[in-house]
Amino acid sequence: MKIKIVAVGKLKPYFAAAADEYTKRLQRFCDIEVVSLDEDGVRKESESILKKIKGIYILLDIGGELLSSEEIAAFFSKSLSKGTSEFTFVIGGSDGVNDEVRQNASMKLSFGRVTYPHQLMRVILLEQIYRAMAINANLPYHK
Amino acid sequence: MKIKIVAVGKLKPYFAAAADEYTKRLQRFCDIEVVSLDEDGVRKESESILKKIKGIYILLDIGGELLSSEEIAAFFSKSLSKGTSEFTFVIGGSDGVNDEVRQNASMKLSFGRVTYPHQLMRVILLEQIYRAMAINANLPYHK
Repeated sequence: MKIKIVAVGKLKPYFAAAADEYTKRLQRFCDIEVVSLDEDGVRKESESILKKIKGIYILLDIGGELLSSEEIAAFFSKSLSKGTSEFTFVIGGSDGVNDEVRQNASMKLSFGRVTYPHQLMRVILLEQIYRAMAINANLPYHK
Repeated sequence: MKIKIVAVGKLKPYFAAAADEYTKRLQRFCDIEVVSLDEDGVRKESESILKKIKGIYILLDIGGELLSSEEIAAFFSKSLSKGTSEFTFVIGGSDGVNDEVRQNASMKLSFGRVTYPHQLMRVILLEQIYRAMAINANLPYHK
């Protein structure tokens, strides 16, 4: 199972430390790769994003589907049972992504109706992917 | 304007650093206090929580209202215009809160349908309160 996160922008040290922690924990379950793209305006960022997408592509989007953690876990296990084992999650920059990046998404996923800074969004996403893996592995996960 | 966050449990260093950063930024706008309660089982935690509540009391709850950041900002400004300037936000521990803590809430607020670790929830909440203040102060807030 391969999971790639494509995100725009750099992380502050404390968010980088949190992201590293979840990335490390995820290595138990999958081949995880985080690709950080430089901030470079929506058009160029979107071009770079499109080049990085492989497998099922999920765009993080405030107006997207509000899945529960269990539903995200089920999404992974269902995809795996259909033979798909490669996933790309995309977090756009502060100014979002262009239409092509939006339209190519297999799913738009939302973590609520509030706007998050993209740095925090990356930590939230990594934690939720880890949580989904823990749910599917029937692992007790409390912190 | 006084804002108190009552939360159960300790934060890992990287989440503590993130929480400190938003707490510091919030001091520009309000008197912000974060009360950390020890993990001590739902019954005792809930008793401690109830003693700390002052003013309008908002419980963070996965099944609560899904407000946008702009709606949270409007909630603050509307409350202020009605003469309420004291708010308590409560984040329960891993095992939640008892019925009394649930029933006393003026509002149940949700940041999505996924389950967050309560540590990360504290960072998310602080960031969203800061965002609401920035919106109401007409401050450009990009990171």
